[in-house]
Amino acid sequence: MDRTSAFLARLQDNATRTETLLSALLSDVAFADEIIRPGQLLAAMRHGVLNGGKRLRPFLVIETARLLGGDAAAALRIGAALECIHCYSLVHDDLPAMDDDDVRRGQPTVHIAFTEATAILAGDSLLTFAFDIVAAPETTLPDAQKLDLVLALARAAGIGGMAGGQMLDLAAETTAPDEAGIVTLQAMKTGALIRFACESGAIVAGAPVEDRLRLRQFGEKIGLAFQLADDLLDLTADAQTMGKATGKDQGRGKQTLVSLHGQDWARSTLSRLIDEASVLLLPYGDGSDILIEAAHFVANRRN
Amino acid sequence: MDRTSAFLARLQDNATRTETLLSALLSDVAFADEIIRPGQLLAAMRHGVLNGGKRLRPFLVIETARLLGGDAAAALRIGAALECIHCYSLVHDDLPAMDDDDVRRGQPTVHIAFTEATAILAGDSLLTFAFDIVAAPETTLPDAQKLDLVLALARAAGIGGMAGGQMLDLAAETTAPDEAGIVTLQAMKTGALIRFACESGAIVAGAPVEDRLRLRQFGEKIGLAFQLADDLLDLTADAQTMGKATGKDQGRGKQTLVSLHGQDWARSTLSRLIDEASVLLLPYGDGSDILIEAAHFVANRRN
Repeated sequence: MDRTSAFLARLQDNATRTETLLSALLSDVAFADEIIRPGQLLAAMRHGVLNGGKRLRPFLVIETARLLGGDAAAALRIGAALECIHCYSLVHDDLPAMDDDDVRRGQPTVHIAFTEATAILAGDSLLTFAFDIVAAPETTLPDAQKLDLVLALARAAGIGGMAGGQMLDLAAETTAPDEAGIVTLQAMKTGALIRFACESGAIVAGAPVEDRLRLRQFGEKIGLAFQLADDLLDLTADAQTMGKATGKDQGRGKQTLVSLHGQDWARSTLSRLIDEASVLLLPYGDGSDILIEAAHFVANRRN
Repeated sequence: MDRTSAFLARLQDNATRTETLLSALLSDVAFADEIIRPGQLLAAMRHGVLNGGKRLRPFLVIETARLLGGDAAAALRIGAALECIHCYSLVHDDLPAMDDDDVRRGQPTVHIAFTEATAILAGDSLLTFAFDIVAAPETTLPDAQKLDLVLALARAAGIGGMAGGQMLDLAAETTAPDEAGIVTLQAMKTGALIRFACESGAIVAGAPVEDRLRLRQFGEKIGLAFQLADDLLDLTADAQTMGKATGKDQGRGKQTLVSLHGQDWARSTLSRLIDEASVLLLPYGDGSDILIEAAHFVANRRN
């Protein structure tokens, strides 16, 4: 099996395990200290999460933890928690007051399949549930590491991370940011969770601070590549391939680094980011092949 | 000073300290691992939180922790985190797709003062920030207690607690629940956070499990009393006293225990709940006077 096939098989395997765990956690049996789980809300949460995504963020958690010798079951749980955060952000981002999208991954969005109020509450509940998953006794890590994960996840997801990035993104529709503004927006909106994905593997593994910083930098490179590839796709792909509306940045007059510097610049920058990401993982030898392949995948993805 | 005056003074003092802490935490200086804090989002979060509430939930955290010898600074932080959760729920509850309220505590709601999208993100960010406050190093408690607090807070706020209760509450507008359904709805929508407030004081104090259960039961009594008093007020108070719309349950044909059993039943039940709550705190002697006074306040409040 060549490296690309090996990567795709591992991506699929991790995605399946993540979905199996999420499906089990999001059952109609209430946990201790819960009262009941209302069926409509649970169904909306499941609709928002169990929708066939690539599960790139859980993959990064699982594989960076594996690289550094972290516990696989714990990494899977952190990946599942992170996916709850990612999916809540999509549920809220799709709302009429936000991006107003009816379709995601070829399926009706949560507020279309259910109601707008249900989608708001489903997003809120998924966000809350992420911290439940990290803190629960079933996450068999030392308490200090679990608290590090709670804090890092909250900061990656909150006002100084993803949610703040969404705010900047909305503002960018009316007030065009300059290049520095675009970089900040993207580092927050999509970068923060991807950076957390890679850094959290090091936290799960209880790795020394140098490894944690190295994986964090790796995550930053991947995050930048992810966003550049996304901006390129918005210009070049069609809605059917993407399973969602495309050309939206252009349609809204929203500037991206690609619209500022052109597609050739974007492709050469992607190439440079992959090289830099690979160099960061050199100390880990062959064990990092799968993560370097992931960097290529992120940069070259077609949807 | 009589007991009522002493209670009101303490309530005010705790509220001031909670607001001072929240105002400091919600400054424009980003924490470590945050990128920047977008000004509009920060302003909306502050609007949603620093709005002159009674801060009953932080009061209960602080005073139950004090009763059991818990660290005061840590209790204040947990109270502030809980208030972020309570206020996020109000911000989202006021949205057009939910209760569609323009005014809260005499001020425009967040989506009126800002935009609907900003209100969604401000609520999301407040919810996320609550877990930041609990997990941050500045909360100087043993790691095991902090994790207990993260988990208990997530369960009180999530699908099996407050958010699930809001879902049931929305459903109750179209499908009238029976008495058991109303009890469950209220235990989730308002009861779960109040129960957490009281139980969390015992967690902060590192108290034995019997104390934790006792405080939890106390919180359940207070929560029931709070909701009964709220239902009574919805029938009897005017909008000016409440600082928000009243008569809404009736207007929407929504059943409450008061509409089922009448105001006399409600008043005698409130009286019984206060007695039961007081009995639970007998083992703590005079130290519990302020909490018993709080139970009276909750049951007899006029707004």
